[in-house]
Amino acid sequence: MPITEFDLINTFFTQQSVHRPDVALAIGDDCALTSVPHNKFLAITTDTMVENSHFYPNINPRDLGYKAIATNLSDLASMGAEPAWVSLALTLPKVNESWLQAFSQGMFKILNEYNVALIGGDTTSGAVPSITITAQGFCDKNTVLRRDQAKVGDWIYVSGTLGDGLAGFHLISDLYQSKKSAVNLDEEFLIQRNLHPIPRISLGLTLSRYQLSCCALDLSDGLVGDLGHILQHSGVSAVLNVDHLPCSRSLINLYGREQAELLALQGGEDYELCFTVPDHQKAFLERYLAPLNVPYTCIGRIVEKNPTENIIYQRQGKMVDLHISSFEHFK
Amino acid sequence: MPITEFDLINTFFTQQSVHRPDVALAIGDDCALTSVPHNKFLAITTDTMVENSHFYPNINPRDLGYKAIATNLSDLASMGAEPAWVSLALTLPKVNESWLQAFSQGMFKILNEYNVALIGGDTTSGAVPSITITAQGFCDKNTVLRRDQAKVGDWIYVSGTLGDGLAGFHLISDLYQSKKSAVNLDEEFLIQRNLHPIPRISLGLTLSRYQLSCCALDLSDGLVGDLGHILQHSGVSAVLNVDHLPCSRSLINLYGREQAELLALQGGEDYELCFTVPDHQKAFLERYLAPLNVPYTCIGRIVEKNPTENIIYQRQGKMVDLHISSFEHFK
Repeated sequence: MPITEFDLINTFFTQQSVHRPDVALAIGDDCALTSVPHNKFLAITTDTMVENSHFYPNINPRDLGYKAIATNLSDLASMGAEPAWVSLALTLPKVNESWLQAFSQGMFKILNEYNVALIGGDTTSGAVPSITITAQGFCDKNTVLRRDQAKVGDWIYVSGTLGDGLAGFHLISDLYQSKKSAVNLDEEFLIQRNLHPIPRISLGLTLSRYQLSCCALDLSDGLVGDLGHILQHSGVSAVLNVDHLPCSRSLINLYGREQAELLALQGGEDYELCFTVPDHQKAFLERYLAPLNVPYTCIGRIVEKNPTENIIYQRQGKMVDLHISSFEHFK
Repeated sequence: MPITEFDLINTFFTQQSVHRPDVALAIGDDCALTSVPHNKFLAITTDTMVENSHFYPNINPRDLGYKAIATNLSDLASMGAEPAWVSLALTLPKVNESWLQAFSQGMFKILNEYNVALIGGDTTSGAVPSITITAQGFCDKNTVLRRDQAKVGDWIYVSGTLGDGLAGFHLISDLYQSKKSAVNLDEEFLIQRNLHPIPRISLGLTLSRYQLSCCALDLSDGLVGDLGHILQHSGVSAVLNVDHLPCSRSLINLYGREQAELLALQGGEDYELCFTVPDHQKAFLERYLAPLNVPYTCIGRIVEKNPTENIIYQRQGKMVDLHISSFEHFK
């Protein structure tokens, strides 16, 4: 007897261990029913991953399940939101039980870690595998992190290391296209950074709670492109110290410092936070961020809007000329 | 200069005329920010439409935009929810501006009609066009319509006419595959019923508000399949009077009454509501539903769980033997 859509949902997607009191009705009816705390904003984000655009057919479905959730939680982190629920829209050419088993394991692993409930979704047949996640969470109404709140004089910070996601993507591509057959430890690190981004939830919550920042976003399209959004929406420009860019040991080992910096500037899929901190809050940053054990680096400063260059690049305090384009769909 | 993802979003998806006070931040940041009324549940639903699974490549994008929203609002209707916001995840092989123009027009037409705001989403490139909508709305906490609340003795009702959606789908298929080159007025009616389902929002709200029903769902997979969900979740069975099934004049003209009944029983994509009404509320139904101008028909009754037949079919009060399977993805 062929497995039906409903059997499939029941088998793989109702086995979660997260049970939240704010979910009155989860999977199984036409809608999920939830409650939102009275004094909070509901933060809502949606992201799609499509085979051959965002991942290769040979990806481990466990990694795919993890990453599809992680990238959406990263959007919640960047608003200073506490994640609560996700919906899953999954399109597959056919039912493959071992694939679904691994995919759901990867998904529930990260959902459990962040106490997020899967509340519903849709499974459909279609020629190209595709995953759309809608993630929701709660923000304090007065301390939201937005991309349009950067002010002249703010310091620009990023979490973690940059460029790993793009370098990892190149390595995954080379392996998939058989341009490469084995990886060393540095390469494996970069691949893992691409497949397992860490949503910076605690960082976003801390920046918001202590009002250390009111301006952040997550680096999905690369620093230059995403910082560009902050600058455009806030009506300001930036000075970036490229020699301050945090690059992983593995990235530098493989590419050298200068090429690593370019990957850090252009690279997509880092899923680190970029945030700005007013000068008078800079001293409090270390105190409040220390317990989180999340690396962070000051990489520049917000300046008055520059009519010709949105971002002014410096190395050791001297202007350098760099031409960097950001990652784009539909390019 | 090629159009970028962000230009695309700005051009086509920020031109809405619905502005709701419960949307603090819509398209443009990592998340949308919204508020939910204190005493309400948030109802959340997600549905995907994939080319060649749910629509043909030659569909008018205006119809596609309309239908993608309508089918999601129908899920909100079936819970007795008032729609509030949608997110759109759109996957396209390439940017086609006239296509996007028409798609967004169809989408905003129905969003405006129901005062629903587009709050965000994601546009991605992928080989097969695909649309995932997440729709959200508000329910009264004490009068939700659920599929597990049917009680023995309840009368079973449906809105509108059934079978049109499936018949319309067959006609659309025949035209696409050049098995047919022109349609008559009856055929055109059925095609329009498939392309422009009416989400029964006012009906769902009225059933909930006056507690005329506490059990409903929308008929996306066909009456037999969807009523089957009510019966399974509620632990009951049903007697269906197939000669009472509401069929459109066009469906009967084209197929004859008996074949029309079979289409009504099996047919998917009707997006009408099926709901159960306790005997003591039956008399109030007409009073409260009359102002809505929504057709509705009593088609049977909930009975004790029958160990062998989930649905007992009757014609003119006598049992008839029908074997009907419901529509399924992944069949």
